[in-house]
Amino acid sequence: MLDLITTGNHEAVRSEVDHAIARLMEHGMHRATRHGAEVRELWALAADHLRGGKLVRPLLLVEVFDGLRAAAEAATPEGSGDDAPVAERSEVLRLAAAIEVLHYAFLLHDDVIDNDLTRRGRPNLVGALLDGDDLAPAPAVPDQQGSVVTSRGTDSEDDHRVAQDPARARRAHWARSSAVLVGDQMLALAHQIFARVDLPRPAHRELMEVLEDAVVDSAVGEFLDVSLSDGVIEPAEDVIDEMTRTKTATYTLELPLRMASVLAGAPAEVQRALAEAGRHLGIAFQLQDDALSAFGSALDHGKDPWSDLREGKQTAITEYARRTEAWPRIAAALEQDSTVEERGERVRTLLLDCGAREHQQMLIDREVESARDVLEDCGHRVPGPVARVLRALIDELENRSR
Amino acid sequence: MLDLITTGNHEAVRSEVDHAIARLMEHGMHRATRHGAEVRELWALAADHLRGGKLVRPLLLVEVFDGLRAAAEAATPEGSGDDAPVAERSEVLRLAAAIEVLHYAFLLHDDVIDNDLTRRGRPNLVGALLDGDDLAPAPAVPDQQGSVVTSRGTDSEDDHRVAQDPARARRAHWARSSAVLVGDQMLALAHQIFARVDLPRPAHRELMEVLEDAVVDSAVGEFLDVSLSDGVIEPAEDVIDEMTRTKTATYTLELPLRMASVLAGAPAEVQRALAEAGRHLGIAFQLQDDALSAFGSALDHGKDPWSDLREGKQTAITEYARRTEAWPRIAAALEQDSTVEERGERVRTLLLDCGAREHQQMLIDREVESARDVLEDCGHRVPGPVARVLRALIDELENRSR
Repeated sequence: MLDLITTGNHEAVRSEVDHAIARLMEHGMHRATRHGAEVRELWALAADHLRGGKLVRPLLLVEVFDGLRAAAEAATPEGSGDDAPVAERSEVLRLAAAIEVLHYAFLLHDDVIDNDLTRRGRPNLVGALLDGDDLAPAPAVPDQQGSVVTSRGTDSEDDHRVAQDPARARRAHWARSSAVLVGDQMLALAHQIFARVDLPRPAHRELMEVLEDAVVDSAVGEFLDVSLSDGVIEPAEDVIDEMTRTKTATYTLELPLRMASVLAGAPAEVQRALAEAGRHLGIAFQLQDDALSAFGSALDHGKDPWSDLREGKQTAITEYARRTEAWPRIAAALEQDSTVEERGERVRTLLLDCGAREHQQMLIDREVESARDVLEDCGHRVPGPVARVLRALIDELENRSR
Repeated sequence: MLDLITTGNHEAVRSEVDHAIARLMEHGMHRATRHGAEVRELWALAADHLRGGKLVRPLLLVEVFDGLRAAAEAATPEGSGDDAPVAERSEVLRLAAAIEVLHYAFLLHDDVIDNDLTRRGRPNLVGALLDGDDLAPAPAVPDQQGSVVTSRGTDSEDDHRVAQDPARARRAHWARSSAVLVGDQMLALAHQIFARVDLPRPAHRELMEVLEDAVVDSAVGEFLDVSLSDGVIEPAEDVIDEMTRTKTATYTLELPLRMASVLAGAPAEVQRALAEAGRHLGIAFQLQDDALSAFGSALDHGKDPWSDLREGKQTAITEYARRTEAWPRIAAALEQDSTVEERGERVRTLLLDCGAREHQQMLIDREVESARDVLEDCGHRVPGPVARVLRALIDELENRSR
């Protein structure tokens, strides 16, 4: 995860965003209380989990918005009129909270789909609802094509244990269903905040389109991911590229950057440059996420270290490896009759040996370079404070370990 | 399901709504095509399934809106100004399509949660994605408290069959995950349409609040439903009442009626009356749905006849039965070691004998009566054409067999 310690007033902005998220959750809590103790408890738990993130997306939105506004105000003599419409800063903070809520909605449904019980190094919502009822994720089952597939709750030892305990099966069903429903509420809440922003109609329409792009891309990416993992779609290069571009890239970097430029009323040229730079950096972010999952330290990134392997995830890394001479050995290692840890260590070694890590780094460097080019080509039109935020973001991306 | 054949131009309105839905789905299809063949196919299938409904909610919205507008125009001399703001009719049709999309979003996630594979008498989205791969729903497992619980995919014979066939388990996982993601897209799409309606700010805000109430209530109702079925919450009367009020009642009748009055700029008194009548009728609708599931003909309502029993659904019917002397026998019948059909027939007979059907009918009559009272108390303020639509709706509710 990125820290995004970029500007002097970074901590002040973080506390503003924190405050905006807390107010949003309070509104939900107020509503939930009307529906009884059980609903209130569920909401309180979700609000607590929502607040465990690094706030990468909301901070990027607010800092770039502030940078664009500072530059615009410095350039325009007071009262010269003719300004592009601009959102109130308090509304930008509400929107910053909304994109954290959107992010949490995606995490909730992804974790249900992947049958994951941990996130950010601690139990996720489902894990917390099961509360010590240690329903471990299903171990991997290698399939005929040499990719690793997971049963995700239908054929593991754990699930056979669950099968023998109907009360436990019911509780697991309840916890997962609750996460689906809380995810729906978070998705709806994020849209509500966007819908209610006070902006002139054309700018509001643009804002809603930016949100639509992010939400559609994210679902498309997740659908391709699941289709590849479950072996329903063949791992062709163009499909994996599309997944890498859509799954988290769009909503992680392109969304806040495009939002900031719409909300600050930035000139069209700057809007385009920020969108394009965001797209490249978002892809770099996803590629690096794949690299950290495959080669990084679980202690740092906080995820189950073998979950990608267990779920048979297809990434740019497996796509590269598939085209090397090492693939038959990797496929054999995936099929090996051993623990997930043993298979994981063997696969990791083979991937390192065949140059998959260097190739992935090359892909990351290419995207970062493209982002730098876009910003430079746009010349003096991307204001200084914004360029500084983006350069800091790029530096962080390049030195990321979690 | 209601047919809502109420007004002379009913078929014309239906075809307008149909057209609006088709246009909305085309927009989605246009986007989906960009993401490749697999995404396009998924969207096409979802668009096809979406269009299988009776359009109760959108028709109610448009017909009540038309009635309110006709009355307002008759009462106000042209150009007298001072009119409440009113939405364009083309936007009302888009919103009508949006509430059908919202309804479909709820159905998708409900079916995933309940592990159902049929809807409206044919395979639902998951069933269609499995395409003949006959993954039947899990049979019932009675628990210690005498309520019937389902394994929902973890401990049934079917799932053991799936467990022995990893390819089948993967395909089932893929189909269910796809339904979660399509549901997310439908929920987002509905919100997008609401967000983009051209209305003065206060009216738009009201419209968003009406949507929020419906979406929150529906999730609360579904959460209580699952919590009761899975035995996590005790079946107390107030919890069951809250579930009956929130699960489908709010978004089925209160939502379109409140929307119509906001969009038509109806006077506050009429808005309140329509909201309150909608609430009562919505509850009657849910109570009748429970009655049809328990006592009606599966051929008519198109659902799996024993799914409520299998899933251990708690309703106002079981709540009543629990307080009668018949309960120990019903509990014993639920625990019986026999097929779901045999248990179902036995339970149905016992419920009929203990007067549960008459009691449920009494509850329905009470709600319908309250709705009639609200409309009468409001006197001449609810315009004639609207009162006619509502009376037709009440008649249909009273004579409903599916």
